[in-house]
Amino acid sequence: MPDMQERPSEQYNRELLLQSLQNEDLDVFREEFLDLHPYDQASFFKELEEEARSVIYQFLSPEEMAGLFENLEVDEEEYKDVLAEMNPSYAADMLSNMYADDAVDVLNELDKDQAASYLTIMDSDAAQEIKDLLHYEEYTAGSIMTTEFISISANQTVRSAMYILKNEAPRAETIYYVYVVDEDKKLAGVISLRDLIVNDDDTMIAEITNDRVVSVSVGEDQEDVARKIKDYNFLALPVVDFQNHLLGIITVDDVMDVMEEEASDDYSKLAAVSDMDTLDRSPFAAARKRLPWLIILLFLGMMTASLIGRFEETLSKVSILAVFIPLIAGMAGNTGTQALAVAVRGIATGDLERENKSKLIFREAGTGVITGTICGILVSLAVWLWHGDIYLGLLVGISIFSTLIVATLAGALVPLIMHRMKIDPAVASGPFITTINDIISILIYFGMATLFMSYLI
Amino acid sequence: MPDMQERPSEQYNRELLLQSLQNEDLDVFREEFLDLHPYDQASFFKELEEEARSVIYQFLSPEEMAGLFENLEVDEEEYKDVLAEMNPSYAADMLSNMYADDAVDVLNELDKDQAASYLTIMDSDAAQEIKDLLHYEEYTAGSIMTTEFISISANQTVRSAMYILKNEAPRAETIYYVYVVDEDKKLAGVISLRDLIVNDDDTMIAEITNDRVVSVSVGEDQEDVARKIKDYNFLALPVVDFQNHLLGIITVDDVMDVMEEEASDDYSKLAAVSDMDTLDRSPFAAARKRLPWLIILLFLGMMTASLIGRFEETLSKVSILAVFIPLIAGMAGNTGTQALAVAVRGIATGDLERENKSKLIFREAGTGVITGTICGILVSLAVWLWHGDIYLGLLVGISIFSTLIVATLAGALVPLIMHRMKIDPAVASGPFITTINDIISILIYFGMATLFMSYLI
Repeated sequence: MPDMQERPSEQYNRELLLQSLQNEDLDVFREEFLDLHPYDQASFFKELEEEARSVIYQFLSPEEMAGLFENLEVDEEEYKDVLAEMNPSYAADMLSNMYADDAVDVLNELDKDQAASYLTIMDSDAAQEIKDLLHYEEYTAGSIMTTEFISISANQTVRSAMYILKNEAPRAETIYYVYVVDEDKKLAGVISLRDLIVNDDDTMIAEITNDRVVSVSVGEDQEDVARKIKDYNFLALPVVDFQNHLLGIITVDDVMDVMEEEASDDYSKLAAVSDMDTLDRSPFAAARKRLPWLIILLFLGMMTASLIGRFEETLSKVSILAVFIPLIAGMAGNTGTQALAVAVRGIATGDLERENKSKLIFREAGTGVITGTICGILVSLAVWLWHGDIYLGLLVGISIFSTLIVATLAGALVPLIMHRMKIDPAVASGPFITTINDIISILIYFGMATLFMSYLI
Repeated sequence: MPDMQERPSEQYNRELLLQSLQNEDLDVFREEFLDLHPYDQASFFKELEEEARSVIYQFLSPEEMAGLFENLEVDEEEYKDVLAEMNPSYAADMLSNMYADDAVDVLNELDKDQAASYLTIMDSDAAQEIKDLLHYEEYTAGSIMTTEFISISANQTVRSAMYILKNEAPRAETIYYVYVVDEDKKLAGVISLRDLIVNDDDTMIAEITNDRVVSVSVGEDQEDVARKIKDYNFLALPVVDFQNHLLGIITVDDVMDVMEEEASDDYSKLAAVSDMDTLDRSPFAAARKRLPWLIILLFLGMMTASLIGRFEETLSKVSILAVFIPLIAGMAGNTGTQALAVAVRGIATGDLERENKSKLIFREAGTGVITGTICGILVSLAVWLWHGDIYLGLLVGISIFSTLIVATLAGALVPLIMHRMKIDPAVASGPFITTINDIISILIYFGMATLFMSYLI
């Protein structure tokens, strides 16, 4: 976690920067630009045309470019384009100078061959560090950790630990936690810079080390890592292998990115958009992301249609029945989605782990009975008043009542079952539950209609 | 931000703790319990019955209880219950010992009278600090900031600054940023502990202070604060009034809570659950949260039904038409929700701010044409094959085609317009867009059906 509050600026002088680039005025540009926070540097850089960017590659050293690149959030194509514009050895130097976890993120966006060729011409230590990290599976602790942490042995004083810390500070992602390891490099404890500072210089590290250190295993899901850092208010968490060797750390800033990613992900799944579109894609790219869902939903919709088709005879006798199909199916979808959303968020926030599952199901059943009763009565009255037909009102009301109970329960059960089966409950649950509930509601409605038939004609 | 990595433990000895409480064994309990991370203390505490909790109030000092309480995340009712169990002066002492921002969060859950009575018997300095914070409106920077920061003047050496820092460390929320203020208490710069440590003891603070400090104004939306901390990878941000007086700081851990809250909020709004249920509520509480939406949706559904009712004559002639109503309305809802989700997330992540709005609209129109064409052709073929009626296939296909274009556009436009009108685009957009799209799709479908009528009978 770079310590970046030292050179920030919000309203940077864009005009001055642009002009100095145009005039190829190295000194003016560097003086203004290097004073900016890397995030602002990246924001400025993103908006430039290729020509202006190529001037920047001449004006900044690979080391200076590394800070900017760590803060560049663009999509796959743009990473490829920007790297292709650079001289390969310049790009490799820049990648060596980035924090390893950020360099890994960039290389992951490239084709395998491309990434491999950069690794060959890179500084070999940095390349090795990156290769080690590239092995970890996506979405695991290993994939978001960095290896630039500070570790010390317990058998020294605060003074000597502070000396190590001062020396390693320029390269470490965070200096606010120092990890204590034993002679086998196994994690033995943690000590915060706060502790180092408030304790006397002659205090032994062993005396002030906390040996009940919370760590995560390298294969742990990144969402669980985020949850731990959030719950415990940590600034960083150590990552260990199965033998408790310290492999890396995950800092709070990386975890914030994970949280945003996962939130976008859950949100987009509820809306049936696989892999949330960024806004700068073309219509073709956007359509490609949405069409798979739409086609699945289309065929599920055809199933529902064919189900209704079986009741065509009923419909031709009592055509008024058709009027209420979307209402009943819609209400089933709505309650189902509500119950689903509560359960999915409960799983995502970890609340559900601590909760009795059967308690949840009883609660949802109760909720379904209450909402079903109230909506059923309201709709009965409305239909009765509107059509002057009490039987039609009763039919629609009873259908809504039964539908709401079943749909609410289904909405809660589907994510629970998916979670039990180790499937991410956010996947497909939205459209899936809506289709299930469409089918259930239509069966209930036409089942009721058959019972009421003699009163309706 | 308390520096909590020093005393964490995951698998604490619950049995031992429970037993020592039951036997009222003070020493065993305190030795084990005070060694736990406050988050674990709070998790243990939450699961206790009232009787066991009352033993804890005797075993722990108000200071010790404060750390636990800062990590207690329960709902309104439970805060009230737990506080009511404590001796009022014990509770007041505990509140005085909490970080001011956390104490404010607790007092905000109480009734005004109750909160006021605690403030009267509290330590008067702490009470004043809390009263100042209570004034700020919910969801603003002021409402989540804390006043426990470290500020120094520029006119001193690193050595003397470190001395101040060591003294204030036990009480400050973070010691990793130190804020430099001028004689009027106006924010003049920031310096990180990293800078203090790597620089020589005799360096003047003025030399190493960064005077381009990023701050937020006290009335700024908490979501914008979270975005800034996330983008710049800060551990804390200073909060200033309109004259740039330093009022407080917001730390990254508070911002993570804001991010989670806002993500849950957007998610629940897409699913039409106002104010996400926590899982431990009763069916009545859950129904109360969901019913308002369901009743609105019910009446919107009745409107759609009455619209279909106008075509009852058409339906009675060609009852097969009814079969495809849910399919077409459903597809309109699906595409609309997809487009909406992309736009809402774009607004939430700030991507849309930097984007040309008309570019988005053109892109969505293009996406609608592509998805509409493909789904339209597919459904035409499917219906033709199924019913052997090419005109019916064409009718449904053209309806899907037109519906998808209009629905996609509507899905993107509604949140944009809401955002322009300064309404949170996540509010009600989900069900709202679905109803609009239901109506549009039914008008298109029956409009087409009227045109095709002579071929269908």
